[in-house]
Amino acid sequence: MLTIKSTHYDYKVSFINNINESISNLIIKGRTSFLIDKNVWALYSNELYLQDYLDDVYFVTAVEDHKTIYDVIDILKIWQVKDIQKKSRIIIFGGGITQDIGAFACKIYYRGIDWYFFPTTLLAMSDSCIGAKCGVNFNNFKNQLGVFHAPKEVYIYIPFIETLKIEDIYSGLGEIFKLHISKDAEHYNYCKKSFEELGNLKAYIKQLVYQSLKIKKEIIELDEYDTGIRRILNYGHTFGHALEKYTNNEISHGIAVLWGMDISNYISYQLHYLSEKDYLDIKNVIKTTFNLKCPYVTDIDKLLQVIKRDKKSESDFINMVLLTKIGNLKLEAIALDKNLKKILKDYFDESLGFFSN
Amino acid sequence: MLTIKSTHYDYKVSFINNINESISNLIIKGRTSFLIDKNVWALYSNELYLQDYLDDVYFVTAVEDHKTIYDVIDILKIWQVKDIQKKSRIIIFGGGITQDIGAFACKIYYRGIDWYFFPTTLLAMSDSCIGAKCGVNFNNFKNQLGVFHAPKEVYIYIPFIETLKIEDIYSGLGEIFKLHISKDAEHYNYCKKSFEELGNLKAYIKQLVYQSLKIKKEIIELDEYDTGIRRILNYGHTFGHALEKYTNNEISHGIAVLWGMDISNYISYQLHYLSEKDYLDIKNVIKTTFNLKCPYVTDIDKLLQVIKRDKKSESDFINMVLLTKIGNLKLEAIALDKNLKKILKDYFDESLGFFSN
Repeated sequence: MLTIKSTHYDYKVSFINNINESISNLIIKGRTSFLIDKNVWALYSNELYLQDYLDDVYFVTAVEDHKTIYDVIDILKIWQVKDIQKKSRIIIFGGGITQDIGAFACKIYYRGIDWYFFPTTLLAMSDSCIGAKCGVNFNNFKNQLGVFHAPKEVYIYIPFIETLKIEDIYSGLGEIFKLHISKDAEHYNYCKKSFEELGNLKAYIKQLVYQSLKIKKEIIELDEYDTGIRRILNYGHTFGHALEKYTNNEISHGIAVLWGMDISNYISYQLHYLSEKDYLDIKNVIKTTFNLKCPYVTDIDKLLQVIKRDKKSESDFINMVLLTKIGNLKLEAIALDKNLKKILKDYFDESLGFFSN
Repeated sequence: MLTIKSTHYDYKVSFINNINESISNLIIKGRTSFLIDKNVWALYSNELYLQDYLDDVYFVTAVEDHKTIYDVIDILKIWQVKDIQKKSRIIIFGGGITQDIGAFACKIYYRGIDWYFFPTTLLAMSDSCIGAKCGVNFNNFKNQLGVFHAPKEVYIYIPFIETLKIEDIYSGLGEIFKLHISKDAEHYNYCKKSFEELGNLKAYIKQLVYQSLKIKKEIIELDEYDTGIRRILNYGHTFGHALEKYTNNEISHGIAVLWGMDISNYISYQLHYLSEKDYLDIKNVIKTTFNLKCPYVTDIDKLLQVIKRDKKSESDFINMVLLTKIGNLKLEAIALDKNLKKILKDYFDESLGFFSN
């Protein structure tokens, strides 16, 4: 178990074995409502004892196109009709998208109602479930609207992983890898070892999730509102987000982040912050673990335009997180100039040969 | 000047004489946008030196029907088109409605951007400008959606009062009176004295505003998120809100609160918490100062239904704030039963004769 210190209230993350017991302990009759990812329900409707509460379940279509402010409003309309009160509690089952729209809706309903989270994806379990951040899309701008709203409690039920598709496992491992690299060589090596034995992931997964949350906890407790140190968690995200956008969300978030980390490392290496050895070592882990279909970006200006529109950009610089060695990240403003374009062109030329395409 | 301690950041409330100086100190070229109540602009467009920034002004229709989540979204759309960044600042001129939709929009845009407030109504100057609460209407449910978002700074420019309509002066005085009653006999008497010399309000107004904010500051600093002591500020609001709803917002907020205080005091008196002397003394101030057109509520069941739908109600009880003596308020759960209906019927029968109708 972990306890996350938040400016609003501290909250626990528990690793649970009996999911129905945890659910039934949370239900207060007449004051509980559920948000459940439709796909999760399709897989687990028999396993979850919620037959008596079906009237109180709202099923979420958890796709990026439905992670908008208007989807939040649809949920709020239902809550209004169902007369959900300020003291009600919302129990959420799903991954990051369900969390995003659910937590956002909870935040603005009566100035904040309590939500309890059962993350069902590896990404949500190991990363997004803590930290209180949520964002929704607004007229095609990703996460332009958002709030901070911490869950009251998080319950991690590892067996959910068994029904995930391989892309979703990879997506989670992407953020897990990012967090372990950011910590130190010991964590990096543990992660690397687990990736080498991917067929035996079960033996490692709980520890990987636990360690990821512990690493993230140390950072968000210092900077819950993302105004300083927490920004290092954006490692891999500047180009990662751009790639998601550039490819119309065809690649998953964690994979985009892996690719973004690799570009970021290449830039850091070209700027003489990161050793070639570290750059290649990490690239090699990414290459051998994940079957990345790295897109060859031909239009670098377009890619940079996408980044400029991203919320982290400002004027003709982008704030990037660069790795200087395993366990060391720094923030740097990088000029969107010829030099960067040259580095990026070289990267795509080299990586096209490097990644299996 | 006052400094308000908030869980997010402390912020200052300054009483200013030179409004254009204050504005120009706030403007950062290319990173400043304005929200201005249309009525304020009609009255002050010549006085405010904003001619160079008209492209960055969004004019707000500050009426209750336009204080909805959809009006917030309209503002966000403009900000998106105008490429307002996370580090932009929004400067708001207006009363409570403009504040509500503006602060709400600021809170959810990029997880919170800074806003600076020039309250233009007496109600906003003396009460709503501090405390970080904002609420918007949602399909006719008043303030059902909301967030807490403190301003970065508040600038009180007393001369704005000169162009207010008498109803708006009264509305502000309603909340001022509430705050002074809640403090102690000394403040109550000062307020009473100023009301007796209403023609000479100018001599008192700055002190009344200052004292109101100071009284409110003491309470919100103890309980910014409204989970305990801050609820006493709802004194007069249970029936006040209901009356606003019952009369379709035909009476102003502060006046509704005065009326709500009077009912609350009558209930408190009938329950033997408040002396008849205090009940009548306050009623008399209300009667002689404000030309209240007290509606005779014939359908008490309907009024109670409206209250039950109000967010502060739960089951068959309503949480009311009752005055026990000047300077002393307490929270009490009041049963929505025959006894209450009898008290209310007596109240309307008596008050019909009391207030000029």
